[in-house]
Amino acid sequence: MADSSRIYTAALVVIGDEILSGRTHDKNIAQVAAWLGVQGIRLAEVRVVADVASAIVEAVNALRARNDYLFTTGGIGPTHDDITVDAVAEALGVPVIVHPEARSILEEYYETRGGLNEARLRMARVPEGADLIPNRYTGAPGIRCGNIFVMAGVPQITAGMLDALTGTLVGGAPVLSETIGCWVAESEVADLLRVTEKAHAGVQIGSYPFWREGRHGANFVIRSTDATELAACSRALSQALAAIDRPPMAGGI
Amino acid sequence: MADSSRIYTAALVVIGDEILSGRTHDKNIAQVAAWLGVQGIRLAEVRVVADVASAIVEAVNALRARNDYLFTTGGIGPTHDDITVDAVAEALGVPVIVHPEARSILEEYYETRGGLNEARLRMARVPEGADLIPNRYTGAPGIRCGNIFVMAGVPQITAGMLDALTGTLVGGAPVLSETIGCWVAESEVADLLRVTEKAHAGVQIGSYPFWREGRHGANFVIRSTDATELAACSRALSQALAAIDRPPMAGGI
Repeated sequence: MADSSRIYTAALVVIGDEILSGRTHDKNIAQVAAWLGVQGIRLAEVRVVADVASAIVEAVNALRARNDYLFTTGGIGPTHDDITVDAVAEALGVPVIVHPEARSILEEYYETRGGLNEARLRMARVPEGADLIPNRYTGAPGIRCGNIFVMAGVPQITAGMLDALTGTLVGGAPVLSETIGCWVAESEVADLLRVTEKAHAGVQIGSYPFWREGRHGANFVIRSTDATELAACSRALSQALAAIDRPPMAGGI
Repeated sequence: MADSSRIYTAALVVIGDEILSGRTHDKNIAQVAAWLGVQGIRLAEVRVVADVASAIVEAVNALRARNDYLFTTGGIGPTHDDITVDAVAEALGVPVIVHPEARSILEEYYETRGGLNEARLRMARVPEGADLIPNRYTGAPGIRCGNIFVMAGVPQITAGMLDALTGTLVGGAPVLSETIGCWVAESEVADLLRVTEKAHAGVQIGSYPFWREGRHGANFVIRSTDATELAACSRALSQALAAIDRPPMAGGI
């Protein structure tokens, strides 16, 4: 049962040399974060690690212990650099087995695509005791072992796996947010932000400056699990900005 | 002096609730990674942490000890949620002071922009003993303390700070890379990739699959610090792909 008074947290381990080399721009952090928010789970921390077993094991063990959920993305394909399953099994201290249902899924998927070879069969390997996360796009499933969710790295496929998990995880009250944009240097309104936040219990105001074409602006994101406090804080901030002749723009800039 | 035979590593700590909420898509990981590669420094690991002092301190201390360099992005602005300087000082066990040169820079920058107020003066605070990293866009400098480089979170401003640091860090031989794209399911060529990698010492082949419009493809990225081995491996892989009637596309797809 969900306990709406407590905060549920998750961590994410992004696995892959392609992110660390700068070649590939990660899209999974934002995608997983937004999805978790809707489930009432807060993404508390992320680590990006190389395709190196010891690095994956360290991150998985550190983060699974102190969060309700741990997600990984990447490294579950058929090639030699796909070592996530082995590393997660090592972290859990269990052997790797071929999951019978995963094998069936792959046999069916590859029936019309050249058949199941040894490399493809690698994608049926799971840490012992794991369940599968459906992949509606390319056959090879994701993997759930306890509070660990092992997902694909290709963002569209990750999205399908998240979709399959929607509504299945216990979370708390979702964090609600409102954004107010303003053409103002945040250094002009730092006090105003701090005072407004303090006046509304359980509300955080984040200040996200930007600088476009030589002009300072910021988006102020107000977050709370309490809709009434959120609305009150948002109204107070808008009025305070308007009072110093810096028109607030609801929804952000 | 650079020792071209050893590998220099860096870690990055991305600081900010806006990344963990999914609201802002991080651009600094790829930007810092690519810049480091050119300096002959490998980005070994990244952590994304919340605007919480204990989380920043933990990440900074864990990563600065085991890497040649540590970079941080985010949390050095003028508002209440900008706590990076205090957290880095805490990690180093030194007090926070106002840096006289940073103060002068800010005084000059804000002379025609409403003057230096208390919030803006926050951006002159540094851990004791730190040097400044020039910010050619918005005044407020980045900070260098030993092997730690504290940079802005706004990607354009981060870019300017990286630019100011170009050529100042000791690195090894830069990692060179070539990319070969191919319309092939990586599961068809997993063995071929593994065997080709093994045949070329000091070369890594990364396989980065994609899936577009229902069609499987992959980019194979070959990396080495040795240009001759890199070229030989790239040639061997191209020939092997052509031999199974999967035309290689130089430069990737």
